[in-house]
Amino acid sequence: MEQKTATIIFQPSGRRGQVPVGITFVEASRLLGGDIEAPCGEHQVCGKCKVRVEDGRFEKYAIHSTPDNAGPIGPSEEKIMTVEEKLEGLRLGCTATVEGDLLLYVPESSRAGKQVVSKAAREIDIDLNPGVKHYVVKVEEPTLEDGMADFERVTRVLESHYGLSSLTIDIYALRTLSSALRSSDWEITVSVWMDKEMIRIRPGSNCSGYGFAFDIGTTTIAGYLCDLGTGNVVDTYSTMNPQVRYGEDVVSRISYHMGNPDGLARMSSDIISAVNGLIDEALEGKSIDKDSEVGQSESSIITAEDILEISFCSNTAMHHILLQLDPAPLGAIPFTPAIHGSINIKCRDLGLNVHPAANAFFLPSIAGYVGGDTIGVMLAETPQSSEKTQLIIDIGTNGELVLGNSEKLLCSSCATGPALEGAQIEFGMRAAPGAIERVKIDPDTADVDYKVIGRKAWRRYSKPEEMQTRGICGSGILDVVGELLLAGIVSKSGAFSKEAQASDRFRENPETGFKEFVLAWAPETSIGKDIVITQKDIRQIQMAKASIYTGSKLMMQHMGITHLDSIKVAGAFGTHIDKHLARVIGLIPDCSPETVSSVGNAAGDGCRAALLNRDMRKEADKLCRNVAYLELTLEENFQGELVAATQLPHMIDEFQHLDGK
Amino acid sequence: MEQKTATIIFQPSGRRGQVPVGITFVEASRLLGGDIEAPCGEHQVCGKCKVRVEDGRFEKYAIHSTPDNAGPIGPSEEKIMTVEEKLEGLRLGCTATVEGDLLLYVPESSRAGKQVVSKAAREIDIDLNPGVKHYVVKVEEPTLEDGMADFERVTRVLESHYGLSSLTIDIYALRTLSSALRSSDWEITVSVWMDKEMIRIRPGSNCSGYGFAFDIGTTTIAGYLCDLGTGNVVDTYSTMNPQVRYGEDVVSRISYHMGNPDGLARMSSDIISAVNGLIDEALEGKSIDKDSEVGQSESSIITAEDILEISFCSNTAMHHILLQLDPAPLGAIPFTPAIHGSINIKCRDLGLNVHPAANAFFLPSIAGYVGGDTIGVMLAETPQSSEKTQLIIDIGTNGELVLGNSEKLLCSSCATGPALEGAQIEFGMRAAPGAIERVKIDPDTADVDYKVIGRKAWRRYSKPEEMQTRGICGSGILDVVGELLLAGIVSKSGAFSKEAQASDRFRENPETGFKEFVLAWAPETSIGKDIVITQKDIRQIQMAKASIYTGSKLMMQHMGITHLDSIKVAGAFGTHIDKHLARVIGLIPDCSPETVSSVGNAAGDGCRAALLNRDMRKEADKLCRNVAYLELTLEENFQGELVAATQLPHMIDEFQHLDGK
Repeated sequence: MEQKTATIIFQPSGRRGQVPVGITFVEASRLLGGDIEAPCGEHQVCGKCKVRVEDGRFEKYAIHSTPDNAGPIGPSEEKIMTVEEKLEGLRLGCTATVEGDLLLYVPESSRAGKQVVSKAAREIDIDLNPGVKHYVVKVEEPTLEDGMADFERVTRVLESHYGLSSLTIDIYALRTLSSALRSSDWEITVSVWMDKEMIRIRPGSNCSGYGFAFDIGTTTIAGYLCDLGTGNVVDTYSTMNPQVRYGEDVVSRISYHMGNPDGLARMSSDIISAVNGLIDEALEGKSIDKDSEVGQSESSIITAEDILEISFCSNTAMHHILLQLDPAPLGAIPFTPAIHGSINIKCRDLGLNVHPAANAFFLPSIAGYVGGDTIGVMLAETPQSSEKTQLIIDIGTNGELVLGNSEKLLCSSCATGPALEGAQIEFGMRAAPGAIERVKIDPDTADVDYKVIGRKAWRRYSKPEEMQTRGICGSGILDVVGELLLAGIVSKSGAFSKEAQASDRFRENPETGFKEFVLAWAPETSIGKDIVITQKDIRQIQMAKASIYTGSKLMMQHMGITHLDSIKVAGAFGTHIDKHLARVIGLIPDCSPETVSSVGNAAGDGCRAALLNRDMRKEADKLCRNVAYLELTLEENFQGELVAATQLPHMIDEFQHLDGK
Repeated sequence: MEQKTATIIFQPSGRRGQVPVGITFVEASRLLGGDIEAPCGEHQVCGKCKVRVEDGRFEKYAIHSTPDNAGPIGPSEEKIMTVEEKLEGLRLGCTATVEGDLLLYVPESSRAGKQVVSKAAREIDIDLNPGVKHYVVKVEEPTLEDGMADFERVTRVLESHYGLSSLTIDIYALRTLSSALRSSDWEITVSVWMDKEMIRIRPGSNCSGYGFAFDIGTTTIAGYLCDLGTGNVVDTYSTMNPQVRYGEDVVSRISYHMGNPDGLARMSSDIISAVNGLIDEALEGKSIDKDSEVGQSESSIITAEDILEISFCSNTAMHHILLQLDPAPLGAIPFTPAIHGSINIKCRDLGLNVHPAANAFFLPSIAGYVGGDTIGVMLAETPQSSEKTQLIIDIGTNGELVLGNSEKLLCSSCATGPALEGAQIEFGMRAAPGAIERVKIDPDTADVDYKVIGRKAWRRYSKPEEMQTRGICGSGILDVVGELLLAGIVSKSGAFSKEAQASDRFRENPETGFKEFVLAWAPETSIGKDIVITQKDIRQIQMAKASIYTGSKLMMQHMGITHLDSIKVAGAFGTHIDKHLARVIGLIPDCSPETVSSVGNAAGDGCRAALLNRDMRKEADKLCRNVAYLELTLEENFQGELVAATQLPHMIDEFQHLDGK
């Protein structure tokens, strides 16, 4: 008798696959790499493996998830779950069973292994000049003879002592002014936004304050909690962009908006919730050690009221969707944004759970497909003030390119797809524990050595069962393709070659009929099955690298440039890149390897710079006005160049710079 | 057997009294003047007499109202009322019965006789220069060659055609920009606030827009819906301030705040609801005839989105409570406000149901007891630009006084209490149909003639049953006291005189033991009982007039003034005042009657001026800074003067100007 199976999708990891009906959620998670943690060993005691059954409204997945597909609630589950949790659709992962197709959301608290933040904050130099500054004000107590109101009494001192004139005050701050003054012997600390508006009043002298910089990617969201007093990054947080359920790329999200009357509001709300989730995560019991004035270290809890500004960068479509600006025009020629310039909005108008008077600053957008994230990259890498000609490649779900120097800057955008981020790859996953991040393939034996995130020793120095690998992240995929090419297992065209036949790792999948190459055998994995790279995976990488390579080449042609002083690769992907292999597969233009550098999440760094230095906001708007945009698809030969660039190894053929490594 | 009775209070009229248990709400309303309309003659058919049973949380009234006190729901009620109405606590007034103490709210739709708007808008000259103006913009369609974003495309034209630079845009307006441009062949109408911010975008050419000016009184709220294109008052709306349930005057509301942690939020929410109620009333099916460009009259419905700005004036306490600013400091020496200057806030931040990007403008406050309403009076009456010395008396629940001319202005405040508005008077009521508004008493016979609002003929020219009187409004009360004095029925001290004994209208109330004088016999009333003025009522009027007279006198002394060129009486009260009788009872300082004039609701007029002319807002802040405030209670002799001024007729004694009318 054939065993019945069901399709399961785990969010936010995006892991999906077929599992036998009847197994528990935790078992399914183990099979698919779905991230559920079960500290009590599935003894239905700890209640740590709670999972939410999502409804089946997302037709894209063509699965019809209903609570009934999760089997009935058992007695131990009945006991552990609260009424609220049940109403929320939460189930206990170690006891709820798969009875049909399911879309399951694994809350952060139930996830195994803290995510490795691939969008980590780099050390960059930012002159501290934040949008929000604090002023301690001591005023005279009013009398019948001097009956001046509280606000005017305070602004009088702010003007005479600090030169701040024409200050306004947010209503939420004004509501606290009178009691703050009267509770602290008429001494308060006033937080002022951009020398314009008083946004927070605290009794006494208390100059602490925090800000958040958020980089909203199509696939992932990264947040940097910063101390506005020191400029230091307190901590970094990241999560999947929950909008992935509406489509992997921006085009499918724009389509979702156009096909659903409430699609825009829903997608916006999802992303706001995700941002609020990261803020909550940052605030939950977060205590900051800081040096007090008397030299002692004291610890204090950060609350939502302590977060006084947020800066946002993202591509133009994410920017529009978050702000509920109609993204439809971005989806059709001429891809016109609703607005270029930077935007300031009260966080409360967006539903962000921070200080109600806090401002949200959005970096400006150059064009429909070159957004605030690219401006952020420029703020961090400053090609606008360098004489050297730079090419900056920001690789995300979309690729953005910036080329030039202090004399002229050009930008453009290319559709890479999410493959380089590990998405839409059979065993692709985020850069999280268990992900294969580096790969070596022996050209003689076709044997595979690899390293996983979270374990220092490579495969060859480990017992198979120690590897516990779960999938491949972006850098691993790039390594695999480069190494397969160098080992002769795939040919220039990207197809598996005759040499592949010799390897016992090469096979045709009996179910799908597609060719694939085994990277890790089932015993080395935590999911109990072979981790492979498929012919389709390789095609995805080819398309991605071709679009980046073509964009770079056409931009150089357009500017009449043949020489690059430096190539910078940005993005979560960039932090792991092997420069050499990137050149091997033709991801980046011809250059000597020493000119190539990874600059990590430069967009996030620039977003942080805008949070911490108000001059960067002016610089951002200036860049937005002055950087020219090149629409690649309008360039002659675009299509021909793109097709030609899908070849592997493009570089070796065209430039012959690699001497047969 | 003694009949059981229950205490009933009708809101918003404030009518209260004892009624027999077992009668219907409509019957109780008829007894107490509670305003319920029953067009179908109580046949339980029309459903027009719906009344809400309020819960009994307002300890002030010391009644313990519960839904059970309203008797069970009968079959006809069951049939007529919707589920929502039942959940809301609504009952059918013609069938629900009184079974115990009840606090009943009569919705506007169930009220008999449209209220006579005592705060009607006067014709005043206002140069039209509103905060919100409209601009028609036609732009070129974007192309791949000219990819400028929508916002910048529009602002470029606004700058080149209309000279508007550095414009920002509210997020709610930005959200509609792209679709408006694309739906109307790239022609839109932009509404701009204060030449700074784009707040509304509409497709095509459509320059209509409205504003609301609200005068938030301690007892009543008046709203003026104005056409921002013409400056005309479209209509005027008013209601009771629902905060009266927390206390009649500002001091008791401040106490309520100090005694209840959520008191401030609750009072603020109540007033916002009342304002929204008036806005709803203005919008419900309101269609405006207007002349279109081609000369034809067309009619259009006004929606919430058409209301683009609101201006507010009120006394300082109402201002603070509405904005949820701590009013506690206003309740104690030195009565310091949280802020003097004018305030601009997004209407959405206050929960006002108008265009989400609309601004709310609050007139500034001079002192704890001289607020934006007094500034409004000055904007309307402009003593600041007159060489003549004026005394302006604004009579509300509190009295505010302004004295001076273009060289110097002084203001102060006096506690009049709500008696002159008809409140805290045994048969006092608002200026609504059925209210006695004018009274004559024959000095020889002590017979009473009177006129009620809504009927032209005086009592003497009517059959008793035609009068259908329900109570006495402010001007009627003033008339009564003046006439009683002139007829010798009350003496200078305010006590009923020996002459009173001769009249069959004079009596001691058998229940209370207090002396009273019958103004209307039961057959002349719609409430089936005699309408009287009591000794206590006369005392209230004495206190009110004494405080106004004393304030005026001390201000004149303080400024060294003995002559007044004019005396203006403002407020709802002022529209009905008999100048002569006001002088008889000593309400206003010595002067010849021709210098006295009524200026109606000047505060509301000034509020309208601020809505319709942005220069008035600057003028308001200038007045706030420059008008001196005199704290009367600090003046020497204040207490002595006040006590002396309680005498009736003060004027006759002191100045002997009246020649024995």
